[in-house]
Amino acid sequence: MADSVPSPRRRYRPLPLGAVGFEDQFWAPRLRANRQRGIAFQFEQLERIGAVQALDQQPRPLAIPWRGWGTTQMFWDSDLAKWIEAASYSLATYPDPALEAQVDDLTAKLAAAQQPDGYLNTFFTAHMPDKRFTNERDWHETYCAGHLVEAAVAHFEATGKRTLLEVMERYVDLLASVYGPSEGQKRGYPGHEELELALLKLYRATGKPKYLEFARYLVDERGRQPHFFDLEALARGDDPAAFFQKTHEYSQAHRPVREQDKVVGHAVRAMYLYTAMADLSGETGDAGLMAACERLWADLTTRRLYVTGGLGPSASNEGFTADYDLPNETAYAETCASIGLVFWARQMLEATGQGRYADLLEHALYNNVLAGVSPAGDRYFYENVLQSAGADRRWEWHVCPCCPPNLLRLLMSLGQYAYGQGEGEIAVHLYAEGRARLEVAGSAVTLHQTTRYPWDGSVSLKLELSQPAAFTLRLRIPGWCEGARVFVNDVGVALAPLLEDGYASLHAQWKSGDEVRLELPMPAHCLYAHPAVRADAGQVALQRGPILYCLEAADNPYPLHQLILPENAEIRARLAPDLLGGAVVLEAEGLREATSDWNQQLYRSSPPKLEPVTLRAVPYSLWANREPGEMRVWIRTA
Amino acid sequence: MADSVPSPRRRYRPLPLGAVGFEDQFWAPRLRANRQRGIAFQFEQLERIGAVQALDQQPRPLAIPWRGWGTTQMFWDSDLAKWIEAASYSLATYPDPALEAQVDDLTAKLAAAQQPDGYLNTFFTAHMPDKRFTNERDWHETYCAGHLVEAAVAHFEATGKRTLLEVMERYVDLLASVYGPSEGQKRGYPGHEELELALLKLYRATGKPKYLEFARYLVDERGRQPHFFDLEALARGDDPAAFFQKTHEYSQAHRPVREQDKVVGHAVRAMYLYTAMADLSGETGDAGLMAACERLWADLTTRRLYVTGGLGPSASNEGFTADYDLPNETAYAETCASIGLVFWARQMLEATGQGRYADLLEHALYNNVLAGVSPAGDRYFYENVLQSAGADRRWEWHVCPCCPPNLLRLLMSLGQYAYGQGEGEIAVHLYAEGRARLEVAGSAVTLHQTTRYPWDGSVSLKLELSQPAAFTLRLRIPGWCEGARVFVNDVGVALAPLLEDGYASLHAQWKSGDEVRLELPMPAHCLYAHPAVRADAGQVALQRGPILYCLEAADNPYPLHQLILPENAEIRARLAPDLLGGAVVLEAEGLREATSDWNQQLYRSSPPKLEPVTLRAVPYSLWANREPGEMRVWIRTA
Repeated sequence: MADSVPSPRRRYRPLPLGAVGFEDQFWAPRLRANRQRGIAFQFEQLERIGAVQALDQQPRPLAIPWRGWGTTQMFWDSDLAKWIEAASYSLATYPDPALEAQVDDLTAKLAAAQQPDGYLNTFFTAHMPDKRFTNERDWHETYCAGHLVEAAVAHFEATGKRTLLEVMERYVDLLASVYGPSEGQKRGYPGHEELELALLKLYRATGKPKYLEFARYLVDERGRQPHFFDLEALARGDDPAAFFQKTHEYSQAHRPVREQDKVVGHAVRAMYLYTAMADLSGETGDAGLMAACERLWADLTTRRLYVTGGLGPSASNEGFTADYDLPNETAYAETCASIGLVFWARQMLEATGQGRYADLLEHALYNNVLAGVSPAGDRYFYENVLQSAGADRRWEWHVCPCCPPNLLRLLMSLGQYAYGQGEGEIAVHLYAEGRARLEVAGSAVTLHQTTRYPWDGSVSLKLELSQPAAFTLRLRIPGWCEGARVFVNDVGVALAPLLEDGYASLHAQWKSGDEVRLELPMPAHCLYAHPAVRADAGQVALQRGPILYCLEAADNPYPLHQLILPENAEIRARLAPDLLGGAVVLEAEGLREATSDWNQQLYRSSPPKLEPVTLRAVPYSLWANREPGEMRVWIRTA
Repeated sequence: MADSVPSPRRRYRPLPLGAVGFEDQFWAPRLRANRQRGIAFQFEQLERIGAVQALDQQPRPLAIPWRGWGTTQMFWDSDLAKWIEAASYSLATYPDPALEAQVDDLTAKLAAAQQPDGYLNTFFTAHMPDKRFTNERDWHETYCAGHLVEAAVAHFEATGKRTLLEVMERYVDLLASVYGPSEGQKRGYPGHEELELALLKLYRATGKPKYLEFARYLVDERGRQPHFFDLEALARGDDPAAFFQKTHEYSQAHRPVREQDKVVGHAVRAMYLYTAMADLSGETGDAGLMAACERLWADLTTRRLYVTGGLGPSASNEGFTADYDLPNETAYAETCASIGLVFWARQMLEATGQGRYADLLEHALYNNVLAGVSPAGDRYFYENVLQSAGADRRWEWHVCPCCPPNLLRLLMSLGQYAYGQGEGEIAVHLYAEGRARLEVAGSAVTLHQTTRYPWDGSVSLKLELSQPAAFTLRLRIPGWCEGARVFVNDVGVALAPLLEDGYASLHAQWKSGDEVRLELPMPAHCLYAHPAVRADAGQVALQRGPILYCLEAADNPYPLHQLILPENAEIRARLAPDLLGGAVVLEAEGLREATSDWNQQLYRSSPPKLEPVTLRAVPYSLWANREPGEMRVWIRTA
C-alpha cells in the first residue's frame, strides 16, 4: 500500500483497503460474488463488445452507432478504467496473480496507446484524431481521462506499480496545458464531471500540488461567462444553443458552482461534481465550497430524493426535474447516480464528520445501489424504478455500460466506507461483522465487530490493542434509530451526553479486551412522503433499520395496487434464511379489494369490498431476482 | 328534406333535423355558439392551412411534412367534407343564404375536381396521381371518400341539391369497380374505416341497393386471408410486416369482423367500423353482425372505457391497449373516438331499442365529447385527459384537425339523437327543453319538452296532436337513475310494469293537452372503478345525473392530490349561474394534507395531518376554460 499525503483539514480519512475485512452474512457473500463472478463476467462483456480490443486504436466501423450527441462507444476507456480500478481494489485485499497479470496487461496496452504528446483516448485516436479537445460539452474526453486517473491511482495503491500512474500523469499534464486560465489556454472544463474528483485522488497519491490546483481551476471555472461550451461550439462553427440538452444545467455549468443551490441536470454528473467540491473543500478547508455543497445537499434531500436513495427521476436528461417530482413507475434513478451520491456523502462525511452524511451514504448503499446488481453479481439494473408492472428485467449488459463497473469498484472498495480515522479518534460509520486494523495514539488497534446488522441492531466491538492507549471511539447512531443504547464492558452508559455529530463519542484509555456494545432498535415502520410528492399520495413505504422494503408479486399473488396496509397495522419482521441468501422479510395483516362482486361492472357507486390478506415485503435491493412480476415500494394505506 | 328509404328492420329511426328544436339552457347556447362562431371559425382555419385552396389540385410543396406512413394533409378532403356536412345540418334547421352559397361553392369546386373516370381525391390527384389505390392501409383514400359521401348525403338532405351527391355516386361507383370480390377486382377494404358507414347513408338517401351491397362487402371482406394489406404491400414491393403500427389490429383487420370480440387498435377506426356493422345489421337484420357488435360493446364497456366516456388510452396507436389500462394523466381519449362511440351507440340503439345504448350515448356526449370544445365553440381538445398537472391548454387547430369538424357535425345534427320513431311509437332518448314534430298513427304530433335537464331531473312532455291517436310513448329511464317516477296528466303511475328495454312505455289514446311528467332523481354520488383499474385505485369520481365532474385548480387552490373526499361525505349540488354560461357545481367537506409541520423533511414516519377544506367540482366538460391549472377527475378517498 503506497503512502498518500495527509489531509489535515479533513475530519476523517478512510482506512486502507487491506485493513478492513468483512466476515458477515450480508456483505461478505455479496463481495465474494462480485469478486469471484463479477470481475471476470464484466471483463468478458468488455471483450465481447470490443472495448478491450479497441485499445489497439485501429479504426473500425463503429460498434455502437453515432446518435446526435455522439456514441456511448466514446467512453469505453472509462468502462475499462472502472474495471481496472475495481480489480485493483480487489487485489489490495485478495491477492490473485492471474487477475494481477490481466490488469497489468491492460495497463501495458494503455501505456502503448499513449501518444507521443501524452494524449490517451483510444476512441479519438482511432476514430477522430483531428477532433481532440473540440467538444468537451458532449464527448466525454476528460471523463475518460478522469476514470483512467482513478484506475491508475487504485492500481498504484494496490500494487505499488507506477505504469498507469505515470501514463496518466503525463496525460494530465497535457490536459493541464490545454485547459487553464493562462494566455493561450482554453478556459475549459469537463462536460461530464469526473476528472476533478480524480485529480484529487491523483494529488493524494503523488503529493503533487499541481493536481490539486488543476482540480480547483476546473471546479471554479465551471459555469463562468463567457461560457466555455458556447465558445467551443462557435469555434466548431456550431450554434451554441443547438445541442441535445438545450441547457447548461444539464452539466451543472449554468452558473459558477459556488452560486449553485439547486441540484439540476444529469444526476451522475451532478454527484461527481459535488463529490469533487466536497473533497476539495475537505482538502483545503474552502468554506465557500462547503457552503455550496451544504445548500445542494439540503436541496437534494428535502425535495429531490427517492425514498430508496435514488435520484434523477427523468430519462430525458438522466437527471433532475422539479421539486417533489418523484414518479415511481418511470423513475430513472440511475444506479450510477446513487453510487455518485455515496461518493459525495463520503466526502461530506470525511470533511465534516457529520453523521447525517453517513446516514444517507448507508441508505443509498443498502437500497438503490445494491438493487443495481443481482446477488450472483452478474445481472444489473441501470434504472431503478420504485414500481413495476412486471415487465422489468435485469440485464447482462447495456449499450451504456457505466453502471456495472461502477457497482464493482464501489463494492470492491467498501472497506473505505466503513471506518474513518481522525486525529486521536476512530469512527465506525457502517456496521458489519468483521475487523479493522489501524494505528491510533501510538497503538496498533484491531476492532472486532460482531453483529448481524443490518438484520439485527446489536453490535459488539471488541478492541485488541498492542498497548493501552487513550483515544476517542466514535460509533454512528443512525438517524433512523430511536432509543439506541451503549454499553461499555457491559455497563450501560447514558447516550445523550456522548452524542456528537450523530456519533456516540467514547473517549477512554482503552485496553485489549474492552468491549463496546450498541443496541440499535430497528422496529419495522412506515414512511410517509411529504404531501407535495404527488406520486406517493395516500401510500406508505416500509423500512426496518437501514433497509427499505417493497412488495413483489412472487410473495403477493394479487395486483399490488389492490393491497392496502391499514395505518396502524402491526408489521412483523421474520428471518427468511432461504430468500436469496437470507434476509429479514416483513409481514402485516392488510386488506385487498375484492373483485368477485363486480358482475361485469367497470364503475359502480359502492366502494370495493375489502378482504383480509397478509402482505409480505422483501428488501428493495433484492427485487427482480425471482420470477418476474409486479413490484411496488409505495403501498396504499387507509 | 329529401326522402330516404324506410328501414323496416330497425327499431327506431331518427327524426329529420328540422323537426327537432332545442330551446333549453344547456344545449341551445352551445349549438348557437357552434353554429354562429364554430362554422365560420373552422372555415377560416381550413382556408388558413390551405385545405380549401387545395381543391384546385395544383401540386404545391407539402404544407404538412411527410412522416413515415404519410401526412395528415392527405385527409384534408375529409376535414372539408365534415365541415360541409356540419354546415348542411345547420342549414336544415337554420336557413342561411350566405352559408348555403359558401357550401355550394365548395361542392362546385369538388365537382370540378372530379376526374373523368369519377376519381375524387385532391391530394392524390395533385401530389401522387400514379399512387391511386396502392396503399389503402396507410393513406386514407377511401376515408376521404367516405366523409365526402356523408357530406353529399347531408347536403342533399338539407338542400335537395344533388351536385355533390351525384359526384359522389360516380366516385363510389368507381370505388366499387376497383374493390370487390369479382375476377379482376382488388379484394380490398378501407384502411381507416369510414366509407362503410357512409355507404349506408348513401343507400338510404338514394334507395340504391348497390351501396348497401358494397358496404356489406367491405365489412365482411375485412380481415380475411390472404390479407389484403399484405398483398397490397407486396404489390408495392414492400415488406408487409414493415409498417408503422406492425399489427392489423390497428385497423381492426386482424381477423374477420364477425369473429372479433375485443375492441383493439385505433379507437376512431374501431368506432366507425362498429357503427357500420350495427347500421348494416339494423338495415338488414343480420344477427351475426349484431352478435359481434354486442360482444365488442361488452368488451368496451366492462374493461376499456374511461368514466368520462373516453376511449383509447394510448397515444402510440391512438387507441386501445390492455384491459383495465386506463391511465388518467396520459389518457389519449381522442374527441373523435368518443364521437365515434356516440355514432355506434346510436346505431345500436336504433337497431335494438335498448336503452343502455342511449345511456352511454348520453354519457359520452355530455362528458368526453363536450369537453372537446369550448363553450364559445372555437377552442378544442384532441386528447381528453382525466388528470392534468396544469400544462394542458385548448388549441385553435391541430396538425391533424379531425376533431373540430367532427364535433361540429355531431352538434349540428344533435336533433337526430334526441328522439326515435318506430312503428306506432315515439321514443324520447335525450331530455332537453324544446319541441319535436312528427307523424305517428295518422296524427301530426308535437312534443313540447319542459325541463332544466341535465341540471334537474324533472321533465314535462306536453302533447299537441292534430287528432287523438293511439301510440306508444317511450321515455328513457337513464341507467344512472334510481327511483324514477312517472305522472300522466298529474297521476302517478307505477313505473315497474311500464319498463321495457330501459324505457317507460306508455301506450294510450293520446289527445292534445295530455302531459307526461318524469321525475328523475339525480343526487350527486361517487363512482368507484373496478379494482383492476390501477390508475383509479383509492379514488372516486363524482357524478350527478348524466354529468361527470372534476376538480380544477381554479376552484381548489391546493395541489389536487392532497385533497381527500371522505367516503360518506355529503355532496351538495348548487347552481352557479355565472360559471361559463351556468352549471350545477358540487361541493363537499373534505380534507387536505397539511404541509406546514413537515420542517424540511421529505419522508417521515407519521402520516400527514389533515385539515378540513371544501372541495368544489365542476362538470368535466367545462374544464380548461378558465385560468390554467391542475385538473383531476379521480379524487382520493378515505
